[in-house]
Amino acid sequence: MLGSTHGTLTTHSRPARVVACGEQPPHTVHGTTAPHRGGDGPNGQGSHDGRGADEAVERDVSGRPLYAPVPDLDRFFRPESVAVIGASDSEGRPNTGITRQLIAWAERVGARLHPVNPGRTRVFELPCHATVADLPETVDLAVLLVSDPLPVIEQLAAAKVKFAVAFASGFAETGEEGAAAQARLAEAVARSGLRLLGPNTNLNAFEKFRDDLDGPAIALITQSGHQGRPVFTLQELGIRLSHWAPTGNEADLETADFLSYFATRPEVGAVAAYVEGLKDGRSFLLAADRAARHQVPVVAVKVGRTETGARTAASHTGKLTGADEVVDAAMRQFGVIRVDGLDELQDTAALLARARKPTAEGVAVYSISGGTGAHFADLATAAGLRLPTLDTTKQAELHQWIPDYLSVANPIDNGGHPVGDWRGRKIIDAILADPAVGVLICPITGPFPPMSDKLAQDLVDAAEQTDKLVCVVWGSPVGTEDAYRSTLLGSSRVATFRTFGNCITAVRAYLDHHRFTAGYRSPFDDAPRVPSPSVRKAQALLRPGQQLSEHAAKQLLRAYGIRVPREQLVTSAAAAVRAASLVGYPVVMKASGAQLAHKTELGLVKVGLTSASQVRDAYRELTDIARYEDVPLDGVLVCQMIERGVEMVVGVTPDRLFGPTVTVGLGGVLVEVLRDVAVGVPPFGEDQARAMLAELRGRALLEGVRGGPPADVDALVEVVLRVQRMALELDGALAELDINPLVVLERGQGAVALDALAVCH
Amino acid sequence: MLGSTHGTLTTHSRPARVVACGEQPPHTVHGTTAPHRGGDGPNGQGSHDGRGADEAVERDVSGRPLYAPVPDLDRFFRPESVAVIGASDSEGRPNTGITRQLIAWAERVGARLHPVNPGRTRVFELPCHATVADLPETVDLAVLLVSDPLPVIEQLAAAKVKFAVAFASGFAETGEEGAAAQARLAEAVARSGLRLLGPNTNLNAFEKFRDDLDGPAIALITQSGHQGRPVFTLQELGIRLSHWAPTGNEADLETADFLSYFATRPEVGAVAAYVEGLKDGRSFLLAADRAARHQVPVVAVKVGRTETGARTAASHTGKLTGADEVVDAAMRQFGVIRVDGLDELQDTAALLARARKPTAEGVAVYSISGGTGAHFADLATAAGLRLPTLDTTKQAELHQWIPDYLSVANPIDNGGHPVGDWRGRKIIDAILADPAVGVLICPITGPFPPMSDKLAQDLVDAAEQTDKLVCVVWGSPVGTEDAYRSTLLGSSRVATFRTFGNCITAVRAYLDHHRFTAGYRSPFDDAPRVPSPSVRKAQALLRPGQQLSEHAAKQLLRAYGIRVPREQLVTSAAAAVRAASLVGYPVVMKASGAQLAHKTELGLVKVGLTSASQVRDAYRELTDIARYEDVPLDGVLVCQMIERGVEMVVGVTPDRLFGPTVTVGLGGVLVEVLRDVAVGVPPFGEDQARAMLAELRGRALLEGVRGGPPADVDALVEVVLRVQRMALELDGALAELDINPLVVLERGQGAVALDALAVCH
Repeated sequence: MLGSTHGTLTTHSRPARVVACGEQPPHTVHGTTAPHRGGDGPNGQGSHDGRGADEAVERDVSGRPLYAPVPDLDRFFRPESVAVIGASDSEGRPNTGITRQLIAWAERVGARLHPVNPGRTRVFELPCHATVADLPETVDLAVLLVSDPLPVIEQLAAAKVKFAVAFASGFAETGEEGAAAQARLAEAVARSGLRLLGPNTNLNAFEKFRDDLDGPAIALITQSGHQGRPVFTLQELGIRLSHWAPTGNEADLETADFLSYFATRPEVGAVAAYVEGLKDGRSFLLAADRAARHQVPVVAVKVGRTETGARTAASHTGKLTGADEVVDAAMRQFGVIRVDGLDELQDTAALLARARKPTAEGVAVYSISGGTGAHFADLATAAGLRLPTLDTTKQAELHQWIPDYLSVANPIDNGGHPVGDWRGRKIIDAILADPAVGVLICPITGPFPPMSDKLAQDLVDAAEQTDKLVCVVWGSPVGTEDAYRSTLLGSSRVATFRTFGNCITAVRAYLDHHRFTAGYRSPFDDAPRVPSPSVRKAQALLRPGQQLSEHAAKQLLRAYGIRVPREQLVTSAAAAVRAASLVGYPVVMKASGAQLAHKTELGLVKVGLTSASQVRDAYRELTDIARYEDVPLDGVLVCQMIERGVEMVVGVTPDRLFGPTVTVGLGGVLVEVLRDVAVGVPPFGEDQARAMLAELRGRALLEGVRGGPPADVDALVEVVLRVQRMALELDGALAELDINPLVVLERGQGAVALDALAVCH
Repeated sequence: MLGSTHGTLTTHSRPARVVACGEQPPHTVHGTTAPHRGGDGPNGQGSHDGRGADEAVERDVSGRPLYAPVPDLDRFFRPESVAVIGASDSEGRPNTGITRQLIAWAERVGARLHPVNPGRTRVFELPCHATVADLPETVDLAVLLVSDPLPVIEQLAAAKVKFAVAFASGFAETGEEGAAAQARLAEAVARSGLRLLGPNTNLNAFEKFRDDLDGPAIALITQSGHQGRPVFTLQELGIRLSHWAPTGNEADLETADFLSYFATRPEVGAVAAYVEGLKDGRSFLLAADRAARHQVPVVAVKVGRTETGARTAASHTGKLTGADEVVDAAMRQFGVIRVDGLDELQDTAALLARARKPTAEGVAVYSISGGTGAHFADLATAAGLRLPTLDTTKQAELHQWIPDYLSVANPIDNGGHPVGDWRGRKIIDAILADPAVGVLICPITGPFPPMSDKLAQDLVDAAEQTDKLVCVVWGSPVGTEDAYRSTLLGSSRVATFRTFGNCITAVRAYLDHHRFTAGYRSPFDDAPRVPSPSVRKAQALLRPGQQLSEHAAKQLLRAYGIRVPREQLVTSAAAAVRAASLVGYPVVMKASGAQLAHKTELGLVKVGLTSASQVRDAYRELTDIARYEDVPLDGVLVCQMIERGVEMVVGVTPDRLFGPTVTVGLGGVLVEVLRDVAVGVPPFGEDQARAMLAELRGRALLEGVRGGPPADVDALVEVVLRVQRMALELDGALAELDINPLVVLERGQGAVALDALAVCH
């Protein structure tokens, strides 16, 4: 098992090098995977060549691909023949232990194994070949037990090997030098056309899986072998695992490739992932989109909530974690369920892999103690689960078997589950028969045979005969009780938990997932493919490397149909007065110039001017201040004054992983002090834009406060979508955009950008 | 074990009544408990008669007690003689099972047991007495297996019985009628002078505790027997439990009584409590204060986060949960650690009971996988734990045994714990020797013998030889591994967890607890005992049953030394002009009258008046509107205009459990939309008032935003404390107070109450 932890290979050994040469055309490498679960759209249509066909790949207006290639990994997970480069059988060498494990694995999966090592003729009774070139057949998979995989890649390509796994560490995780070495390796792999897992990975993919379990399984993807161990170990509790992909440094194959592949494997019920960093934002979104289209739940732990976590992750697999709130938003948009703990990852993935579609969202809590029911109901409702009050007929039915003085409204308190007879089962069946109930949860906080044994058995028997979800919390800290180990874990129809918290997290995720996928429409289907007419107008306004003047920035917005106040840029007091009468009093006057910020602090804004004389004075004052402060002006803006409305901010911020992102928040102190802002990762549709507003803590302001009218949310959503379009069409040219404030008028009146700041690349 | 769940007694039986008569004086009943852990102050001095000495009890200015009586419960938990009223040995009757358990328990604790039952002469070979009066000796404890305990109480008092336990249910938990019956029972008990546990309780206090465990123990208090079961079961994992108090409906003895008692028991290392509702707010605060003085950690689950939870709890033990944010604040103020799950209750209480004082707050994370270290560090720092970067000397030392390419800065990644030799232990000792490190945490997410066995053993060995806290997370979902069951759980010096989350929660609570108690000063020592001179002035202003006019409310504030704007109440335009020149221009004018709210909406406020003519016009306009709207005025306020400062709200809100509470929040949208408010439960001192401000999400506003100066926080704190004093001194007369806004000027300038609303009882 040492092989399953990081670095052990290289801490102890430097296996022999292997030399050879040759090459092969890429197009022979990648097969296809056909979807089979109602996938639609180009992405759903599955497979495309990973590289060869790139030119053909459809792209959005920003040049990003609109679907991901889906590598055919069947031969990786179930190869017919395997070569072990650097195989050994001399005692005391780690390669020997690894070789032994690989031979055992090859036997299990029925693959022919060929040791390769120039120094040997036989390894563990198997004929050993000096070089890759000497292999007796075209192997599907080569496992590289060499400290430097680079020279081997071309030899493998020459030998038409489809897949390779590189265990060696010392690459991106060790700093710049290692990162350069990894880049060279990646290029070699790209040229060769074979697909590589690693480097800095391990044996996890080749471990012994239980084959005596059936039903939908968990497929596991981890960037750290050790972090996947608890999910793997779930097999000992009867939870089926179908695959484990330890992606390590992801020089070639990345998390997204495995996610895309698993999304259409019939045996996979859910994907569990431990992610430290994403190699590429778009490929992750496309893989998640594919899973969402096929309604395959994806549960992920993603490191990087804090600086410390991000830094440590980087030093581990050389990955950058990305801005956490952006990753968070991306996952939410595509239905990836993010959890914090490995225990939540296990419990949530296990539930989602095996539970059938909910027939209703109502949760019924059945307990043998009023205290337990009260406590569980408290935490469940706090987490957003809905406990419908059972109707009086149902309550009357339950009171046939439960004393009248106990409450059966939901939670249902039985005051002690009947042990001696059939009543207990009747109670459970009666609850499950209620159409308002989609989930039955029975928290058993303390074991007290014989009652808990009978209760567990009744729950298992009932679960076997219903499509509804039956959950049990076995709260005993011991966990060796028969009712738990044999009865509950023995049934694949009961989801068993150890804590209230994890049960609630998993059930919440289960209901959320099915609600999400039922209403899912891929934003990639609607992503803009061709530039809008606005682009030409916009490009004329951009000034490479510069910050635009407020006036120019507003023109940019106007080009995208975003409303700005009536305004004129003037260069004389007289012109200002003419402009004011055109714009209409009262007016606002602002100095306008490129590189000009903090206008208000500098006194370069005058509001509420109601007469020609005030306008004339204001013009002089503004130009005097500008001269005094020595800020170059392109003129003075005379703007229509907008007084009532909710102040918002809408902007575009670049993200290393995902490119331009769109932010929306509440203006004033809410954004300045509380950073009450939501992020959208393109592409997203109207629903997502509305969801962003729902995330704002201060959203109530949009519904109208202090007796004020509700704001024009539709107009706000439209602005967010237009800004997204702008961000995509001007990607590469527009570095940053900040509309602050965007005043949202009352419903039906629209939204107006009072000020804007734009910075060009 | 059936006895440990609710309702089982009454669902099945109606035991025989017992009749007798007599009485005894109360003063013989209660003994005393002396503190022994540096308790100070009247509360620390421990014991006072529960009722007899009430007159003597010191009280604060609101009439609430300043310390709690501490019942001497030694004879309850360790009685020398016990009577079982309603004892039975006829097969099939639940009382028979209970009697059997009580006999076994009496033998264990060495108590003489006397069955009482008029229908029998012997019960299980023991001589049975017809009535309580026939008992051969004065018993310490009577267990009542009767459906109606009321008639028995006086007989017990006559027989000088010290304690009684009533299992019967059907009281407050069943609604009004039951509540009335419970009230009658409580009165009888109060008259009798004995102390009663229950009704609606169970056998938990008399269960079999492991006596082979030593070291500090957990004392358990639960209002639901079943909910305490998991903590009780911790004994099977080697964690010592000293007491279990199942308080049920708390007609007499309540959670606070047991908490006060446990706070000075030498064997108690921590108190774990499951609370559905509090019987009395003040008694809980005093008990928590006593625990804080004696530095005894209290960990509590408190139901009532949601309406559902509150409602269900009420129907269970007939308790009202109280406003959750107030309970939350009360617990925080007195250092009670509130957790949500029973698993957190177990893990946190177990850690706090056994861990020694921290020598430093730095946490070191040692793991055999970079991934595990990164993930744990991420969650730990997100939760507020501090992972100090180890200094270069220490890192160099660690690199003697850990390869250079692995990071040992903290988290420390060993790339695989050395198995073959002494290096692993050296690494652990070296980390523990670092003065910056107070806690070592080793997350082991996957078991992989032999490495995990050796690692566990090294951690245990190291822990036995240090005062520092050593924590291990055993992440395997199986939990039957020897390294976990034998090695880790076998040591009382290692705190072992199953999840990252619970480990982080417990370690955080551990560091918080010691920081809190180290700096703890009981607010009861400083609570006002005598009314301030302000009271007389204030009382003259109160109008029973009425809402005061803004002017009167401001006089009330002034009486307590809270600054209000210069202002005059006038009743003529001419007087208004005179007032304006005295107050100083610009002025604000407002209509003033009792029952007058929403002045702004009605247009009854005029701001920024700069001339006599404007003041004259404003006076007419305000009086016209008032006439038109038909609102009676006591005049018009001419106030000094205060323009700059941070708008806050400060108020007094009554709470059912705790009496008047003080709230402080940020004004404007923050309080209207986000309810960004903190609550203080009297009595609290200056530190707590500052802590309330630190809770505000928008607190940054007080530090100065947009280049503004920092606000006068000291003045704000002073206002909060003066409002607390007012709330206590006028308790019963002042129903509600709302200062909105209180404008906090820049540092050194003070704070001014611009508007106030006061409602009298």
